[in-house]
Amino acid sequence: MKIDFKFTLEKTDGQARAGLMETPHGKIETPIFMPVGTVGSVKTISPAELNDLGAQIILGNTYHLHLRPGDDVVAKHGGLAKFNSWNRPTLTDSGGFQVFSLAKMNKITDEGVHFRSHLDGSKLFLNPESSIQIQQNIGADIMMAFDECVSLPAEHKYVADSVERTFRWAKRSYDARTNEKQALFGIIQGGADHELRKLSAQQITSIPFDGYAIGGLSVGEEIPVMYDICSHTTQFMPNDKPRYLMGVGTPQDLLHCISYGVDMFDCVMPTRNARNGLLFTSKGKLHIKRKEWQLSDEPIDAKCDCYTCKNFSRGYLRHLFKAGELLGMRLQSLHNLYFYLSLVKSARNAINLGVYNKYMNETLEEMSTGGE
Amino acid sequence: MKIDFKFTLEKTDGQARAGLMETPHGKIETPIFMPVGTVGSVKTISPAELNDLGAQIILGNTYHLHLRPGDDVVAKHGGLAKFNSWNRPTLTDSGGFQVFSLAKMNKITDEGVHFRSHLDGSKLFLNPESSIQIQQNIGADIMMAFDECVSLPAEHKYVADSVERTFRWAKRSYDARTNEKQALFGIIQGGADHELRKLSAQQITSIPFDGYAIGGLSVGEEIPVMYDICSHTTQFMPNDKPRYLMGVGTPQDLLHCISYGVDMFDCVMPTRNARNGLLFTSKGKLHIKRKEWQLSDEPIDAKCDCYTCKNFSRGYLRHLFKAGELLGMRLQSLHNLYFYLSLVKSARNAINLGVYNKYMNETLEEMSTGGE
Repeated sequence: MKIDFKFTLEKTDGQARAGLMETPHGKIETPIFMPVGTVGSVKTISPAELNDLGAQIILGNTYHLHLRPGDDVVAKHGGLAKFNSWNRPTLTDSGGFQVFSLAKMNKITDEGVHFRSHLDGSKLFLNPESSIQIQQNIGADIMMAFDECVSLPAEHKYVADSVERTFRWAKRSYDARTNEKQALFGIIQGGADHELRKLSAQQITSIPFDGYAIGGLSVGEEIPVMYDICSHTTQFMPNDKPRYLMGVGTPQDLLHCISYGVDMFDCVMPTRNARNGLLFTSKGKLHIKRKEWQLSDEPIDAKCDCYTCKNFSRGYLRHLFKAGELLGMRLQSLHNLYFYLSLVKSARNAINLGVYNKYMNETLEEMSTGGE
Repeated sequence: MKIDFKFTLEKTDGQARAGLMETPHGKIETPIFMPVGTVGSVKTISPAELNDLGAQIILGNTYHLHLRPGDDVVAKHGGLAKFNSWNRPTLTDSGGFQVFSLAKMNKITDEGVHFRSHLDGSKLFLNPESSIQIQQNIGADIMMAFDECVSLPAEHKYVADSVERTFRWAKRSYDARTNEKQALFGIIQGGADHELRKLSAQQITSIPFDGYAIGGLSVGEEIPVMYDICSHTTQFMPNDKPRYLMGVGTPQDLLHCISYGVDMFDCVMPTRNARNGLLFTSKGKLHIKRKEWQLSDEPIDAKCDCYTCKNFSRGYLRHLFKAGELLGMRLQSLHNLYFYLSLVKSARNAINLGVYNKYMNETLEEMSTGGE
């Protein structure tokens, strides 16, 4: 089956990479950050704004969309990108992460996972075949293989078993795909263990997926461990396929992991933190609720060109936050997403200019000056 | 004192009027609907969107802004229109309505009103002088006199006393104003009583306010009573000053009351109903939560040109509503505001063409066909 998906590695700078993905819904320049639209909307943000922000691809969560509105409903609406009027590339996870982290009373067998809905407690079952079927209903340009994501720390034996199960499930996921319009990525597991990560990378990359992801990081381990495992794992991943680090992370994480050769990221951090009043700036984090901003007419970040920073003061945003006004969540989500998307865009430019390490070090240095 | 405010009556069509208000922050074409920005933001909607929607003036609530962030804070940020980055005309109510309806344990004397904050129970006091002082701190282009708003039904004696008190408070409000950049409107009370309304109108219009409002309607009376009192009261209001019907109402209410000669309206209905999933369309109301919309790819209103109707299906909006997604509240608020603002814009066009009654009757007829 000829898949309607193409990745071109355009430029390398050390381990850092600039590339181009082509999907049925359009092109994606990497490295890229993918805003998370859990149930089919990036919370508070419109598709027109996502476009203006420079977003190129958004993520939907298979678990959430399966429960509500139901993947059959999404299918009848013409698939996710049409349903939510984004009309550009989308990616769905396999549902595995949510089943292991969010759902209740899951029971894992080699066949699949029994669990209960976090919404109404109803009994559900997910396995590689049903995950791919659901993802085909949702219709994203990129699907993810069904894997077992282990929380860290974990016993070596458990992680080793999960690597083998993830391999078996990856093969079943690969065989289950029937739609040539949807790319499918495999997921490498292996916890914080170098040998298991190498083994899983070799196993998963032996299957001709359209791209490869690093799963099971940012799940409880220390940041230096995450960086170490990420940089260790990318060396066993092929150069000619996109590399996706799932669920990561802070702006600093993105910069470091781009230097290890990662092309794609997703994380709820910019939007979730925005709703909680935690903002990202070129000088580090800023808590909008602080009393010291009450009379401030400064923007969140004087260096930022987003709509929020061009029009609103910290004083006004603090007021909206304290008063629980939804517009505040929205304006702050817009800013944080702009910050993330601009960061990866600048990273791409730096790679193309062959100055990525300089860019990364200067950006990290400035981010450490804010003091919050 | 020469007030920086001008009203020009441009055209009449029966009792219906088209006019132009000029304020320090810009011009306003009447009839106009004013979106409500209670604590300084029209809930979920950005100033850029309000502009695109055709909003010309927004309202802020003195009571809410006094409590949070504090009118002194708004003043230090340069006034409401600068604080919230709207930068166009604004209007503040007197705080009276909220004191009587929202605050706890109020005690009314001729001096003013003692009440407790609905936020923290702290003891507060508001009278004509302090209301005007607070409104001058907030800095809206149009301020409202401090009045007593009586819920209906009410005893004749109580309403008669409140008319006299409202007159005394109106004179004190007028005398308290010291800023020539802010217009001040008086408010006519009198409940559902023709004689008291006439008396109050004669009393209030004897004070040279920059405009006059009808208060104390849409406070519990039947709709025909509201229409009757509105049309009765406008005949005692001068032609050369703007007329504002406070806190009203449905699209039907606006159309009827424009025919009685009202120029200005405000109401939380379009935004509050939007957040609750109740939408206004050319064929009447639509409840987005209904199961029948699950697979609908129709927009809210096929005749509507708003961003929401141009891009999103009832099926998607229903999903966002069921999932509690903030984007749904936002897209629906945008639609309802567009509906209201387009309605009054069309009303103005019809008045200018001398066909208002035909426009009103046809629009009301079509609104009655939806059947919800």
